[in-house]
Amino acid sequence: LVESWSFLDTVESNFRPLVVIELAKGIKEETIEWFTKRIVDKKASGGAQLLIKPLVTENGVENIYLVGASHLRLLLGAETVGLVKECNDNSMRTFTYSSRKTFKDFADDNHDFLTMAECQYIIKHELENLRAKNEKIIPGYPQAKLYPGKSIVRRLLTSGILVQIFPLHDREELKKLRHSWYGQVKVGYQPLDDIRCYFGETIALYFGFLEYFTFALIPMAVIGIPYYVFAWEDYDKYVMFATFNLLWSTVILEVWKRICAILTYRWGTLLMKRQFEEPRPGFHGVLGINPVTGREEPVYSSIKRQLRIYLVSLPFVCLCLYFSLYMMMIYFDLEQWALDYHKENESNFSSLMLYVPSIIYAVVIEIMNRIYRYAAEFLTSWENHRLESSYQNHLILKVLVFNFLNCFASLFYIAFVLFDMKLLRQSLATLLITSQILNQFAESLLPYWLQNRYNRRMKKRMCSQKSDTDLSLADQVNMEKEMGTYLGTFDDYLELFLQFGYVSLFSCVYPLAAVFAVLNNITEIYSDALKMCRVYKRPFAEPTANIGVWQLAFETMSVISVVTNCILIGMSPQVDALFPDSKMDLVLTVALVEHLLLAIKFIMAFVIPDKPRDIQMKLARLEFESLEALKQQVRAFQMQL
Amino acid sequence: LVESWSFLDTVESNFRPLVVIELAKGIKEETIEWFTKRIVDKKASGGAQLLIKPLVTENGVENIYLVGASHLRLLLGAETVGLVKECNDNSMRTFTYSSRKTFKDFADDNHDFLTMAECQYIIKHELENLRAKNEKIIPGYPQAKLYPGKSIVRRLLTSGILVQIFPLHDREELKKLRHSWYGQVKVGYQPLDDIRCYFGETIALYFGFLEYFTFALIPMAVIGIPYYVFAWEDYDKYVMFATFNLLWSTVILEVWKRICAILTYRWGTLLMKRQFEEPRPGFHGVLGINPVTGREEPVYSSIKRQLRIYLVSLPFVCLCLYFSLYMMMIYFDLEQWALDYHKENESNFSSLMLYVPSIIYAVVIEIMNRIYRYAAEFLTSWENHRLESSYQNHLILKVLVFNFLNCFASLFYIAFVLFDMKLLRQSLATLLITSQILNQFAESLLPYWLQNRYNRRMKKRMCSQKSDTDLSLADQVNMEKEMGTYLGTFDDYLELFLQFGYVSLFSCVYPLAAVFAVLNNITEIYSDALKMCRVYKRPFAEPTANIGVWQLAFETMSVISVVTNCILIGMSPQVDALFPDSKMDLVLTVALVEHLLLAIKFIMAFVIPDKPRDIQMKLARLEFESLEALKQQVRAFQMQL
Repeated sequence: LVESWSFLDTVESNFRPLVVIELAKGIKEETIEWFTKRIVDKKASGGAQLLIKPLVTENGVENIYLVGASHLRLLLGAETVGLVKECNDNSMRTFTYSSRKTFKDFADDNHDFLTMAECQYIIKHELENLRAKNEKIIPGYPQAKLYPGKSIVRRLLTSGILVQIFPLHDREELKKLRHSWYGQVKVGYQPLDDIRCYFGETIALYFGFLEYFTFALIPMAVIGIPYYVFAWEDYDKYVMFATFNLLWSTVILEVWKRICAILTYRWGTLLMKRQFEEPRPGFHGVLGINPVTGREEPVYSSIKRQLRIYLVSLPFVCLCLYFSLYMMMIYFDLEQWALDYHKENESNFSSLMLYVPSIIYAVVIEIMNRIYRYAAEFLTSWENHRLESSYQNHLILKVLVFNFLNCFASLFYIAFVLFDMKLLRQSLATLLITSQILNQFAESLLPYWLQNRYNRRMKKRMCSQKSDTDLSLADQVNMEKEMGTYLGTFDDYLELFLQFGYVSLFSCVYPLAAVFAVLNNITEIYSDALKMCRVYKRPFAEPTANIGVWQLAFETMSVISVVTNCILIGMSPQVDALFPDSKMDLVLTVALVEHLLLAIKFIMAFVIPDKPRDIQMKLARLEFESLEALKQQVRAFQMQL
Repeated sequence: LVESWSFLDTVESNFRPLVVIELAKGIKEETIEWFTKRIVDKKASGGAQLLIKPLVTENGVENIYLVGASHLRLLLGAETVGLVKECNDNSMRTFTYSSRKTFKDFADDNHDFLTMAECQYIIKHELENLRAKNEKIIPGYPQAKLYPGKSIVRRLLTSGILVQIFPLHDREELKKLRHSWYGQVKVGYQPLDDIRCYFGETIALYFGFLEYFTFALIPMAVIGIPYYVFAWEDYDKYVMFATFNLLWSTVILEVWKRICAILTYRWGTLLMKRQFEEPRPGFHGVLGINPVTGREEPVYSSIKRQLRIYLVSLPFVCLCLYFSLYMMMIYFDLEQWALDYHKENESNFSSLMLYVPSIIYAVVIEIMNRIYRYAAEFLTSWENHRLESSYQNHLILKVLVFNFLNCFASLFYIAFVLFDMKLLRQSLATLLITSQILNQFAESLLPYWLQNRYNRRMKKRMCSQKSDTDLSLADQVNMEKEMGTYLGTFDDYLELFLQFGYVSLFSCVYPLAAVFAVLNNITEIYSDALKMCRVYKRPFAEPTANIGVWQLAFETMSVISVVTNCILIGMSPQVDALFPDSKMDLVLTVALVEHLLLAIKFIMAFVIPDKPRDIQMKLARLEFESLEALKQQVRAFQMQL
């Protein structure tokens, strides 16, 4: 077998390029030699045992390399990263090379057993885990220090020797995916399984959530339409609508957990063991001993980090919040000015002018959100978190708090300080619609247009009139390496989160919000799909079992919306009229109803199981099997005594 | 090695009796023969490979057997149950026989490596896992059916052939424990580690919680005393007291999780893997296939169980709740009557009479709680839950809801319907003190007195004047087998839970409640210790990593208490006077404060980590090691290719 491995490794006839490595221009020869040698070296001598080939274009060899791996190597890598695949008996199990025959669709000559996204994920994992042995520096670059166990690729990236690593598109597959995803006009679900095969679980789960969320909003939208059409103003109807909304929003968030479990069980990520988390690429510190692993690695004092968080980040965030509130006050001045203007010289123009302040404010909000986002990223990165997960949590917390206040402060002010329901409705509508249009434009259409223009220019320069699929590999690589990098699902989830806020926080004032949300999300699916397939480089697949902290964020929003809706209903003149004698009774009733709703919410969240019964059973079965196997092992050992 | 095992097995010179098995009188000879053979049989032939000896008294052989095991057998059993012990490098690891030399205090001749409680737990586990092979019935009892895989001991117990199994006390150790626990007058902590060694983790954790809770109440009690002494009635002071209480109760519950993690890490149960849960002994059904294990076992339709729960149990519980409210109404009639009587003929006697209704009601509450407890046990058992954990959850839910309403309904009624703060204070004091006295009496002192009387009679009958430690083994066994069985920590936690309710729900009305709670708990520690050491049979040790559902119950109570305290403060005339113009403002302020407090509570619960940093590090280290070991394994395998 040792023979066959080495044999497979060196045969390049079936080399399939999977990942592209772009090195800096003018990189030293000795560095390339050392790096490629480390990549192809045997595992036993500390290499990654992958295949690597320079990209040859018409201009000769450029600083671009293609990485692939033999079929056997990929299977062994699948075991290392702990992939979970379906077995012949339809159960999901962690793949091991020795038990490969028991897996569905496995055959030694079936190279489609692992999807391309999985292969690329494996290669990324192997490259990132290529570690320095006793090199002290990167050959040719004495300033790029190494220490035993340091990830070589990460150091190459941070010192700018490596420009980027990205997975290659599969033009054939992409075309098929595009067609089934958004290429035809049809009513139906998205091809989530195909998306997952091509882009990985994180992105497929985002599209799954987007689709689910859109479907879940439809009942709200359907119930909301007659309120607009018939101009229902009876508050008992609004109370019904709000109550339905509150319970519904709890139900959909609970049900999503179950659907998420079904999806990720089928994709195998629900069962995937968490890998040990390495320090994030940007983390720096003095070399010390990690108390958990006992390995040498950079160490940064936790107290210093706390000081940075509490003495710099926190005051900065508060300042930003203050600034955002200040802008809000300017908006109200503008609003007042527009109102006065309309009163003085009443005309079509002046009544149109009434909407201008809201639209300006919506644009300002979007701009501030985007600027703040960069500031938050810079600050969180400066806080120097050791783990990517901790970095992400701090970043998300910062961004969520600011965006929440920035987007909703004016609405809260109008509702609970000005008590102006008409203005609230108008503001809500303007903010929601403007932000949706801006988002669609800035996130997908603008980049699509820019990319298209760039592509056309590129093709012209290459003097070729070939269609996309006929492009040579070199052309394809050159085209893709210039495409933008997809920065993850953060912004997409954030947009949904704010939308959920617009829909649920003041739902009893503006029932039509759900309708706009549904319409926006339907186009969002298409524009996001376009963005993934056409605008950005293919991203590496990231296995994930759930939508993480966003679940918590959405649940928190739905708790806040119980409070706001109860207050809004209590403030309405119609409900007020029900308690002519005592305002006290009104307030007490509202408070009681609010507490009841919150209690029902928590009980519902507690009672609805997070995983469907059959998934629970399958997980129990796996756990039982592993316990039995352990017991058998112990017993077999004890028998020998 | 096979030799040495067999050798150790049959040598009875170092037989140490650990567990007592009492069989029914007049049991058939063939049954005894078969049962003892199965117990001593080799593991390889499906036996438990334990040692068993009949107890010989002056009256000859009775139906009592003593079970022990060789040292080697116990070590192998420790591996089977997955015990976690401390290693030489002070880390905690799962014990395996092959790595035994790496464990602290391990030596082949050190028979104290496993505590007696651990040995008894292992023997219980082995006995319960003694399973039928191809026996269809228990020999001699054709009505006691068996099927392959059925636990023999459980069938023997349910068919009444086996009367009881209990672990033997260790008179020497018990004397030492008693002395250090409550035998001397001293100020200090309980010897939790010794309690854990003797009684196991569940009981030690209860005493740990009781002690912690008492210490945690001391600040509340200390702050509460001046309110009573100086008769402070300023409501700003009450507001401070209540706010302190609310935040404090959140802090203590969060800190308990950390302390619990420290304790159970030291005891090894934090790391212990959950064993696969077998059906509970009382579960019955028709023989079918378990979808998880694929084994033949009784199956009971989940729909039938749901029907029983919703059509019988739920209405019954509601009926009980109604009855409890009805009794409350009678109490208020009585109260009115006593008040009228006092007004008509004012005397010392009549002013004493004022307290009588409360005392009677407190006694009635206790009686109703106890009767309901039996009913709930019967109903939950009739619901036929497959797993002990599910049985316990349903039982605890039933009991908690009823006890909560039964104990606190009258207080809620007085506070929020009658608005009578004076009566509330008086009622609260009477209920709290009466229930504490009744509990101490019924739970510990009465059984202690009965047991003592019985012991004296026993000794007289045996015509011996020997002291406890000089008793022969036969006398000891005969004495212990007649002792009551300790039914678990349920009632003890329930008592603490209700006490926590009395202290926190209306804390701003009666600050002295915490003082009484502290005093009660100090005596409770002693009376519970007495109960464990003197009154009951030794219970089997149960490994546990936390106080389970009680954590949730205490946290829920502390959320409810935020609401009640805010309302009480809002209702007080002093706070009322702060808002002379508008009652609305008062109510809105109270609601705002309440929401703020709840938000702070949830944020605090979220921010305070459940495990201290060093425990987190140790757990991370273990996880890292196991991941590394797995990786090494995979790598070693792949190298062979």
